[in-house]
Amino acid sequence: MNRRDFLRSTGMVAGALLISNSVQSFESKLKYKTMRNKYLKLQLSFMPYTLQLRHVFNLAKSSRTTTPVVLIKIEYDGFCGFGEASMPPYLGESHESVIKFLQQLNLAQFSDPFLIHDILDYVENSMNGNYAAKAAIDIAINDLTAKIAGLPLHKIWGLNPAKTPNTSFTIGIDAPDVVKLKVIEAEPYRILKVKLGRENDKEMIETIRSVTDKPICVDINQGWTDRLMALEMIHWLKEKGVVIIEQPMLKTNFDDTAWLTQHSPLPIIADEAFHNISDLERLKGIYSGINIKLMKCGGLTSAREICYLARSYGMKVMIGCMTETSCAVSAAAQLSPLSDWADLDGNLLITNDPFDGMKIIEGKVTLPKQAGIGVVPLKLKTEIAKFLY
Amino acid sequence: MNRRDFLRSTGMVAGALLISNSVQSFESKLKYKTMRNKYLKLQLSFMPYTLQLRHVFNLAKSSRTTTPVVLIKIEYDGFCGFGEASMPPYLGESHESVIKFLQQLNLAQFSDPFLIHDILDYVENSMNGNYAAKAAIDIAINDLTAKIAGLPLHKIWGLNPAKTPNTSFTIGIDAPDVVKLKVIEAEPYRILKVKLGRENDKEMIETIRSVTDKPICVDINQGWTDRLMALEMIHWLKEKGVVIIEQPMLKTNFDDTAWLTQHSPLPIIADEAFHNISDLERLKGIYSGINIKLMKCGGLTSAREICYLARSYGMKVMIGCMTETSCAVSAAAQLSPLSDWADLDGNLLITNDPFDGMKIIEGKVTLPKQAGIGVVPLKLKTEIAKFLY
Repeated sequence: MNRRDFLRSTGMVAGALLISNSVQSFESKLKYKTMRNKYLKLQLSFMPYTLQLRHVFNLAKSSRTTTPVVLIKIEYDGFCGFGEASMPPYLGESHESVIKFLQQLNLAQFSDPFLIHDILDYVENSMNGNYAAKAAIDIAINDLTAKIAGLPLHKIWGLNPAKTPNTSFTIGIDAPDVVKLKVIEAEPYRILKVKLGRENDKEMIETIRSVTDKPICVDINQGWTDRLMALEMIHWLKEKGVVIIEQPMLKTNFDDTAWLTQHSPLPIIADEAFHNISDLERLKGIYSGINIKLMKCGGLTSAREICYLARSYGMKVMIGCMTETSCAVSAAAQLSPLSDWADLDGNLLITNDPFDGMKIIEGKVTLPKQAGIGVVPLKLKTEIAKFLY
Repeated sequence: MNRRDFLRSTGMVAGALLISNSVQSFESKLKYKTMRNKYLKLQLSFMPYTLQLRHVFNLAKSSRTTTPVVLIKIEYDGFCGFGEASMPPYLGESHESVIKFLQQLNLAQFSDPFLIHDILDYVENSMNGNYAAKAAIDIAINDLTAKIAGLPLHKIWGLNPAKTPNTSFTIGIDAPDVVKLKVIEAEPYRILKVKLGRENDKEMIETIRSVTDKPICVDINQGWTDRLMALEMIHWLKEKGVVIIEQPMLKTNFDDTAWLTQHSPLPIIADEAFHNISDLERLKGIYSGINIKLMKCGGLTSAREICYLARSYGMKVMIGCMTETSCAVSAAAQLSPLSDWADLDGNLLITNDPFDGMKIIEGKVTLPKQAGIGVVPLKLKTEIAKFLY
């Protein structure tokens, strides 16, 4: 019997059973799945891709127009899980390092994608670091297994898709006229995020305030050096309708940050200071909360664990992203009902997203009903679309 | 269209799609599920039941021959999730308290069983305490949703069923001849658990050692009062092949327990001192690990979170149980691949288990392949069997 006939015959048997009793049919489906597992292996494939940014991305210490990513597929039994590694240069990963990481993996040793813990332990222990590459595998395995289960990932995790937070839209540092344009472009969003930490911080805020009164999160990207000046600035920002301060001072400056958190009328969130679960305990009491990004913490499984741990510490959780396609952003969005704030606009900052996925509707993260992380490759005539289809 | 015809027609449509494309069929199934959700509610029902113990259960401070439990069902869309509350008297819950708790719940307000977080938040906030009653709901919701997904719970959680630990079998305090008989009865088990904390502790161990050289966990049930004598006893026990010491001293005696843990050549595990996730942080450094029981921590969802948190603290995890049916024991077993040791013999200590479920095969927890927690009601002509069918 060839593969197609086999699929057909098992499908027919499962179909017949569905008619008589739905519980039984699921068990039969599982039985066939188990029979078939013996002959099936996880198949990993990947393709490097370069994201084109809609605007030049100006941070306190750098600027750029592209972000390298690697898109991956893990295939099993006619199902396909998608994953993505996004490599902003300051985190040290690259096309080369991610490809090298993926090439040394042997996922074909696994004949059951549901052994998520074993698979991720193997991936984790195969090399140190490489968090973005590891996140790609983690996202794809979670997407794949949820697709096999026929459920959106948030549903498997028992999360309410109605409880996703509003997401902020990032306004890069720029000339006042460009800033005003960007604010208008951000019209559907209920919260703005502004990158500060330069000489013209107050001017930037005033420019935004001249066109909108939306709440603002400010991301200082470690730009402030004096805690007294920082506190004074926070009081000024609060009067201007700022609601969150992200990474105000150097990530290594625990003493001044703890002092600032203690005195600040606004929550102070760790971004550069927080990478993965091993950082969390020492940030307790130093920051009010953390910004979790899949590419820094190694993926969804770890991010979910961090959410629960942070909440047990009484810390706030923001779910953020890099510039990335709808793949990684939609993955993070599945987790967002566990967060206090979302900053999931990475896919909106690029012009060549090969996926359709999570949407921001009236400023709110809106999860697709599809199984898995909820992304579908767009039907384009590009190399990457051919790879994804 | 009546309900049966409706089930049949949706089943037929899903069946037809399964033949053409398995991904599509899952999504279609979901679509039908979504359509039907509008008219469906969670239905809770329950029945009190009394477990008959195989042997009189002698602890350091009490003895008994029965344990009250309440068995519950949560039904939805032709699927049925089973749950159980077991109420050993020293924890303060009873048939009356559990029934009162369940009666005040309105689960019919939920039309989607996958909103696990919302449902459990509602249950948690409906009344304080009542951990066994809450565990029953939690087990049933997890069983129900995993059955709808068509997957065993451990699979949804990504755990490897091959990585379940050996389970210990409890030998109650008794006359030497009875103890010897019990040890023979425990033949399939690779680890024995012995309740100590009386005058005849050494005699008990010597009696067991006269018939077997299997490793032994000892559970002191807070029976030791002097830390120096405790340490001396632990050294003696270690020589006799004891491998774990559970709750050696009073649960409130943190100082002596911390000293004992620091000096003990064997791991010291918290049982009475550990109830739920809020206890964990203050036990760090006091005990080497914790014994998680669903009836104390409020269910599987919380137990799983505790496993991850304990591991992040470098603490060992034992998964234990009360005297309970195969329902609650099989639920706990789903989590056991995350534990270092299992003590899941509660169903074997009773004579009137109405379920078939998790098995101990050659001393090892062996998970059923069925969807959900993996229990099936036995076809008996009893009241409880009628309720479960």
